[in-house]
Amino acid sequence: MNSITALLHGADRSGIVAKISGWIHKRGSNVLHADQHLDRQQNVFFQRVEWECSPNSDPLEEGIAFKQMAQLELGMSVQIGYQDDCPKIGIMVSKADHCFHDLALRVRSGEWNAEIVGVLSNHMDLLEATGNYGLPFKGFTLTNENKLEEEAKQLSWIQKQKIELLVLARYMQILSKSFLEKVGCPVINIHHSFLPSFVGAKPYHQAYTRGVKLIGATAHYVTEDLDEGPIIGQDVTRVSHRHGPKELIEKGRDLEKLVLSTAVRRHLQNRVLVYQNKTVVFD
Amino acid sequence: MNSITALLHGADRSGIVAKISGWIHKRGSNVLHADQHLDRQQNVFFQRVEWECSPNSDPLEEGIAFKQMAQLELGMSVQIGYQDDCPKIGIMVSKADHCFHDLALRVRSGEWNAEIVGVLSNHMDLLEATGNYGLPFKGFTLTNENKLEEEAKQLSWIQKQKIELLVLARYMQILSKSFLEKVGCPVINIHHSFLPSFVGAKPYHQAYTRGVKLIGATAHYVTEDLDEGPIIGQDVTRVSHRHGPKELIEKGRDLEKLVLSTAVRRHLQNRVLVYQNKTVVFD
Amino acid sequence: MNSITALLHGADRSGIVAKISGWIHKRGSNVLHADQHLDRQQNVFFQRVEWECSPNSDPLEEGIAFKQMAQLELGMSVQIGYQDDCPKIGIMVSKADHCFHDLALRVRSGEWNAEIVGVLSNHMDLLEATGNYGLPFKGFTLTNENKLEEEAKQLSWIQKQKIELLVLARYMQILSKSFLEKVGCPVINIHHSFLPSFVGAKPYHQAYTRGVKLIGATAHYVTEDLDEGPIIGQDVTRVSHRHGPKELIEKGRDLEKLVLSTAVRRHLQNRVLVYQNKTVVFD
Amino acid sequence: MNSITALLHGADRSGIVAKISGWIHKRGSNVLHADQHLDRQQNVFFQRVEWECSPNSDPLEEGIAFKQMAQLELGMSVQIGYQDDCPKIGIMVSKADHCFHDLALRVRSGEWNAEIVGVLSNHMDLLEATGNYGLPFKGFTLTNENKLEEEAKQLSWIQKQKIELLVLARYMQILSKSFLEKVGCPVINIHHSFLPSFVGAKPYHQAYTRGVKLIGATAHYVTEDLDEGPIIGQDVTRVSHRHGPKELIEKGRDLEKLVLSTAVRRHLQNRVLVYQNKTVVFD
Repeated sequence: MNSITALLHGADRSGIVAKISGWIHKRGSNVLHADQHLDRQQNVFFQRVEWECSPNSDPLEEGIAFKQMAQLELGMSVQIGYQDDCPKIGIMVSKADHCFHDLALRVRSGEWNAEIVGVLSNHMDLLEATGNYGLPFKGFTLTNENKLEEEAKQLSWIQKQKIELLVLARYMQILSKSFLEKVGCPVINIHHSFLPSFVGAKPYHQAYTRGVKLIGATAHYVTEDLDEGPIIGQDVTRVSHRHGPKELIEKGRDLEKLVLSTAVRRHLQNRVLVYQNKTVVFD
Repeated sequence: MNSITALLHGADRSGIVAKISGWIHKRGSNVLHADQHLDRQQNVFFQRVEWECSPNSDPLEEGIAFKQMAQLELGMSVQIGYQDDCPKIGIMVSKADHCFHDLALRVRSGEWNAEIVGVLSNHMDLLEATGNYGLPFKGFTLTNENKLEEEAKQLSWIQKQKIELLVLARYMQILSKSFLEKVGCPVINIHHSFLPSFVGAKPYHQAYTRGVKLIGATAHYVTEDLDEGPIIGQDVTRVSHRHGPKELIEKGRDLEKLVLSTAVRRHLQNRVLVYQNKTVVFD
Repeated sequence: MNSITALLHGADRSGIVAKISGWIHKRGSNVLHADQHLDRQQNVFFQRVEWECSPNSDPLEEGIAFKQMAQLELGMSVQIGYQDDCPKIGIMVSKADHCFHDLALRVRSGEWNAEIVGVLSNHMDLLEATGNYGLPFKGFTLTNENKLEEEAKQLSWIQKQKIELLVLARYMQILSKSFLEKVGCPVINIHHSFLPSFVGAKPYHQAYTRGVKLIGATAHYVTEDLDEGPIIGQDVTRVSHRHGPKELIEKGRDLEKLVLSTAVRRHLQNRVLVYQNKTVVFD
Repeated sequence: MNSITALLHGADRSGIVAKISGWIHKRGSNVLHADQHLDRQQNVFFQRVEWECSPNSDPLEEGIAFKQMAQLELGMSVQIGYQDDCPKIGIMVSKADHCFHDLALRVRSGEWNAEIVGVLSNHMDLLEATGNYGLPFKGFTLTNENKLEEEAKQLSWIQKQKIELLVLARYMQILSKSFLEKVGCPVINIHHSFLPSFVGAKPYHQAYTRGVKLIGATAHYVTEDLDEGPIIGQDVTRVSHRHGPKELIEKGRDLEKLVLSTAVRRHLQNRVLVYQNKTVVFD
């Protein structure tokens, strides 16, 4: 089977759905799933459509032709994914290893169709763990003085590796505006709070001080504004007065793994559309 | 605005989506939402599509025409709903009143576009509560001897009131096969356990005895086999060794209200398709 | 059966638990439940202990004697509750009625041992609903000019009714510092967000704009700082891009009812201790 | 700091709490946490009490003395745990590796004070993964003929390793009655359904066929009756008609990891008391 997934969005107009499904049908291909959303306040149409290519058709060619049609005739922005895509993922970490192991094990078990091509870190703590998965590890030392220089090296490495998704798996540094402009691929971060609560540093300590009864984690695309990017997924877990900062950190780890891996899965399966700093998630 | 909702299912074939969206577009109408599902094991196609009628079109006529097209040309089973539908609901209760109040308050607040036309009960406990909402109350006394006779009276009342949905809001009696064959409308029940666990009587006592750590509630369409009908919704809540049967019953009430009202909402909004004793819920 | 509940907190020292349980045992009474917490950072001891009075003892007298002992000999702050306490509750509302009905039905069904003695409102919308429960309704009109004067009338009414707990059931006004100083009983509010996210007005609209994937509700004791009081309970529910502000408000109603009623129950059952703007909840 | 944890249960009588806390206090030691439960139907008292030994006391000796006192003077069953206990864990697996990695990573990260001493398996699939953690792997081949013989070898290995907790991390075989009688340590299993729903084989397929809207996982102590042992923990996750058996299995993995590791943590922290095929969990 050869399937294609398209994510579209653009100004709504009458007949979009008919046009898209008609185009697919005429080529002898068959819609497997289609999910759509209409933002009536903004008059924007969103769709995720997945179809099975006719045996007579070349999927790559059909994807390109579909994209052209949807852009030119419907004025849509379009992303195309193919069934045998296997995106290259780069992971940035600091010292904590739980999210890294979680991602590495999922990829290795074949849960996702993706490849981890390397780990970047400002600490050496995960050198051995990375090696155990047979992955290259690129360490660097960040100081106030060398930040720009080091970022340039990282970017060069990312581009050389042709990384298509960068995942910050508890990477405790802020990426500069210039880095984000040049990185050339989406960047997903896991923040260890239920955003917009507790932005910035030490969210579990903030949560403890405020006395909340639930703690959370949030996965989002990284934008220039720290912790302000489009949210891909969130979850929470119940806590009580018995949980000090240490216990919150421990409970939070399981949340972080689950929320980050869910967001990465959604991204890899072409389920996320970004619009006006929010996401439409067809899951 | 005048919108129509159609629920369809039938054998999958190429081009269904294109046909449906093309038909709507050609009449000058516009798809608002469309959600579909393909059961690949059974090769069955399911869709919920909602569209806005063109101002030149009569919605009633358009709905009938759509149904004919989908039946004749696509071999689909079709249910049509109109935006200004206001289905007549009958409620059956015994002694517990929490689900009844929850339903009555939602309808009265305008949360749903529906009308409660009366309450049937084998006990007099809710007579006054029913009256406070200005609703007719029909009491009856069930014995082993009069069951058939009483059911006949109930059926006659249900048909006279033109009830389109019967909700068992903690009605503690089993409806006979013959009643279900004659009732002529869907019947939704709330069972106070996480089915298929703890079928039958006193599920909270069963849950206490087994020592489960979560209790649940299940809303389902009523079929001849007790507690075996298609599940519309379920939810659970956490319990501990501190909760005896009395506390489980109390905690369960909030679950029952939420699960039952969610199921009724889904049904009223034409979001539920039944197939092979399961449901497809487009929510 | 005659049981007494004590909530204690104060500087930790060796032997508190032994002293308390020994005192109860010596009088021929028997501990039913005891739950304690030690904040090691602050060195503060918290306990909720519930015991059954010996048949030879007068519960009222025993409660007073216990309180004296714990204050004088252990330096603890103490609150005492008796099994047959039936606190008088006042409810403040504006236009929304869902939390009011939820509270009124719980009290009427006997779920809680409490009495609602009246409803205060700056709108007349709930006049009839209040009357249906046989409760007095006190309406008032708030303007910028009459706020102090009106608050004085409310306070006088609250004191005349001997209200022991004031519940803001979606009362959309801010209580002044002076009102809170004079009210003489705890005040519980339900805020329709997952605090500290989205303080202030229109939290569901804020949540929609930020694109969060969960919405929440928070019940807290009211302090001078708006939405900053000690949190008694919180919960969340999942939302998606399909939910506009209207749907968030609708989904939020069920959350608000559940979170507020849970907080009121905890308070009525003497399960909540406030300390440093946080709560210890023995539930 | 040197702390001791005691788990007690036995027939309730007046003064137990006073006796226990008095005993600890008299030795110059100090209660850190105490949690108790009274099953009034059965008249059984349960307590978990944790205290800090006086610097003048030898913890080991104090634990033994406490146990004697509670047995002889209060008629209680008692288990004692010491702060520096580091129980030896054996893990049994078949082919699935997700629960194994989850447990191994938690132990290695120091999240629990425990040691994994080896992995037993009826398949060779996890040989390499086990080696990567530096753990011994003992493979065996089960046939209908050699079951008793192989179990004897396993038991001998378990006893030689002095295993104090055996964890079935998706071990897909039934342990015989004789094995359980001889194993000499608690055995925890993860069942991939919300028990008592879907006992036996292929629970996700059963869940799919029944059309449930939530799937679950249950961790329990293993007893002779398959899937009938005392439940330590359960959790669920939401599913829909879009999830076929394959997706349920995938979603279930995350549940299984979380529920199993929570149960193991509770056991290792001496938080679980078994009574009448149920558990009291002080968490």
